[in-house]
Amino acid sequence: MARALDGIQVVDFSHVLAGPICTHYLCLQGADVVKVEPAAGDTMRSYGGQTHPDGLSPSFIAVNAGKRSVVLDLKDERQLGAARRLVAGADVVVENFRPGVMDRLGLGYEACKALNPGLVFCSISGFGQTGPLRANPAIDQIIQSMSGLMMLSGEPGSPALRVGFPLVDTYTGLTAAFAIMGSLLRRARTGAGQRIDVAMLDAALAMMIPVAGPFLAAGVEPRRTGNLGYSQSPTADTFPTADGEITLGVVRQQQFEALCRVLQRTEWLRDPRFAARRARQHNALSLRAEVVAALRGRDAITWERLLNEAGVAAGAVRTLPQALQMEQLSQRALCLPVELPSGRGQVLNAGFLLAEDPAGVERPPPTLGQHTRQVLQGLGYATAEIDAMTAAAPAPPP
Amino acid sequence: MARALDGIQVVDFSHVLAGPICTHYLCLQGADVVKVEPAAGDTMRSYGGQTHPDGLSPSFIAVNAGKRSVVLDLKDERQLGAARRLVAGADVVVENFRPGVMDRLGLGYEACKALNPGLVFCSISGFGQTGPLRANPAIDQIIQSMSGLMMLSGEPGSPALRVGFPLVDTYTGLTAAFAIMGSLLRRARTGAGQRIDVAMLDAALAMMIPVAGPFLAAGVEPRRTGNLGYSQSPTADTFPTADGEITLGVVRQQQFEALCRVLQRTEWLRDPRFAARRARQHNALSLRAEVVAALRGRDAITWERLLNEAGVAAGAVRTLPQALQMEQLSQRALCLPVELPSGRGQVLNAGFLLAEDPAGVERPPPTLGQHTRQVLQGLGYATAEIDAMTAAAPAPPP
Repeated sequence: MARALDGIQVVDFSHVLAGPICTHYLCLQGADVVKVEPAAGDTMRSYGGQTHPDGLSPSFIAVNAGKRSVVLDLKDERQLGAARRLVAGADVVVENFRPGVMDRLGLGYEACKALNPGLVFCSISGFGQTGPLRANPAIDQIIQSMSGLMMLSGEPGSPALRVGFPLVDTYTGLTAAFAIMGSLLRRARTGAGQRIDVAMLDAALAMMIPVAGPFLAAGVEPRRTGNLGYSQSPTADTFPTADGEITLGVVRQQQFEALCRVLQRTEWLRDPRFAARRARQHNALSLRAEVVAALRGRDAITWERLLNEAGVAAGAVRTLPQALQMEQLSQRALCLPVELPSGRGQVLNAGFLLAEDPAGVERPPPTLGQHTRQVLQGLGYATAEIDAMTAAAPAPPP
Repeated sequence: MARALDGIQVVDFSHVLAGPICTHYLCLQGADVVKVEPAAGDTMRSYGGQTHPDGLSPSFIAVNAGKRSVVLDLKDERQLGAARRLVAGADVVVENFRPGVMDRLGLGYEACKALNPGLVFCSISGFGQTGPLRANPAIDQIIQSMSGLMMLSGEPGSPALRVGFPLVDTYTGLTAAFAIMGSLLRRARTGAGQRIDVAMLDAALAMMIPVAGPFLAAGVEPRRTGNLGYSQSPTADTFPTADGEITLGVVRQQQFEALCRVLQRTEWLRDPRFAARRARQHNALSLRAEVVAALRGRDAITWERLLNEAGVAAGAVRTLPQALQMEQLSQRALCLPVELPSGRGQVLNAGFLLAEDPAGVERPPPTLGQHTRQVLQGLGYATAEIDAMTAAAPAPPP
């Protein structure tokens, strides 16, 4: 029994979000992720300007459980030497500084490759290592703005709207993890290392493939359709019920017939306005009014059950906390327990189940510099050398 | 020189979106993806109910370039035998039928594993292969509804809002591709196959890690903040300009000082309402009004340039077509040329650049059954047997 990345050593110079999400995915697959932090720590430790007792903000916990933390001042020659020793023995380096920063530190790809020819080296940045915008600063919402993402949701003509969480960071992190996994497979097959250049802008556009692809293939312009689905069927939309909203995914004729039966409106099947798909599209507003009236009699969760029993795709609108409490998830190992100084918490699994070697985290999120001594010892430094190095840095929290 | 998946054979029983996106990512890394289709073809070929000359809708082209197409009627014993022979020689099987369908066809995991013990077998479904909701039908917008995703965008109290493209399908596809890549690496290291179970609901929740993670770790409830960024800083928001909108990512004090200089409003730095971060948060509305007034003098693209030159993160709101035409992307190989019957088109690359073995597609998207004879020959069928099998199916388009 072995997970894909058991025994794989990742040196993680990344901070905040996209980089740590990438290494979270690697950690869940068994990689030993050593997080190299400055003395002040990853800024995510004090997320939102708030300080947390152990440098463990909820946002930091979310994407750093299972990793080890080493504090190194990369501008100090001796500590940079330790970082270089770490890289020399690693399989993967991940960094998300602005392009050029790692080179200036003496830890650029060429320098690292000289230390370790088989290395997989992944840079994550806003716009990539090449191109006229490479030096521009970027955060998630800047990329949401520039990539077209803010012009896809809502109704036609409504103002630009941000997707309400940093999904570009998430998609970029997973994209980088995928590229790294592929490069490790390639290394296993050929022995060769690889340099990977992941840009948030590129990843955001790749994420939009269901709309960007048809535009590139044939000039199809994306349309904003509110809650109406990709299919444009008026019964693939979100509707109020007695106590909340529900989304129906009724597209095909057979599904519409089942919907009519569950709603006890089989007369729609004889109504020329609604009987056929094309007619329903022409009479979308009248049909919507009828569906709203029919759904008023029960609550969203009851409709969800009744409709699904009849084979009709339907899902009540839930808040994220409601979703995370669904019975379905308890059988999916999506939420993994983790020990925190504040008690027991949970972190998210990777979104897939493996039959043979389940993903998981073995360690809580690290306090700042928790593993500095351990890692330096592992690199062969003598106790006196370690004392000298860690004396230069502030003591790790107790 | 070799790509990660050169020589890897993927048998793809998937259709519509999440499955084909998964195998698109594999195809870009060099895998030979054989798409097994029923005689009617993947419904994506006639997306939106429209027929297309070669069965190549823009949505189909977007996620199927580079694959080969084989038409097999899996309910016909002889053609099922060909599918089994295909599976026996493959490295990976991908399917996105409802749970149980592959078993009923005689192509479930246990049957496939008996043919091919080292197989990586990936099932993609709405809710997964286990749990009380496993049999429920699902499409992207149902999962957006149930997962909490529709309650994250927009202002507090505004109605549930769908993200305007099927991003759960995309995230699920990439999640599956990542799990497959990891399982192939594991197989390279141990020789063992793997069963993978990817659920759209699980992947959607994993995608929301920046908000789901803090809730699981410490009960932090997600908040809806419109276009205001994750940082809650009033200058990390979207603003009108002379001719369109721009998003600013001004969070830290130093960035705010640079913003004041570019906007020629250095007096804000002496204004007690705006000088410090906390004061700016208390006076967010007044500050917004001031920023709007200051931005009125120029267009969004000019501000984007001026602000970035000063190190301030800023991005003009673009439509997706405008984004795809950015000069930056031409240096990033994000859009790959592909030959189509209608002329030259483009498909999207994977969102990362590899230094050693660039990703790409070697073939146009396949017409329905274009490679049936070729693939059956490769499986060792004699011409007479192939004639008999393809006579049962409709002839592929010329």
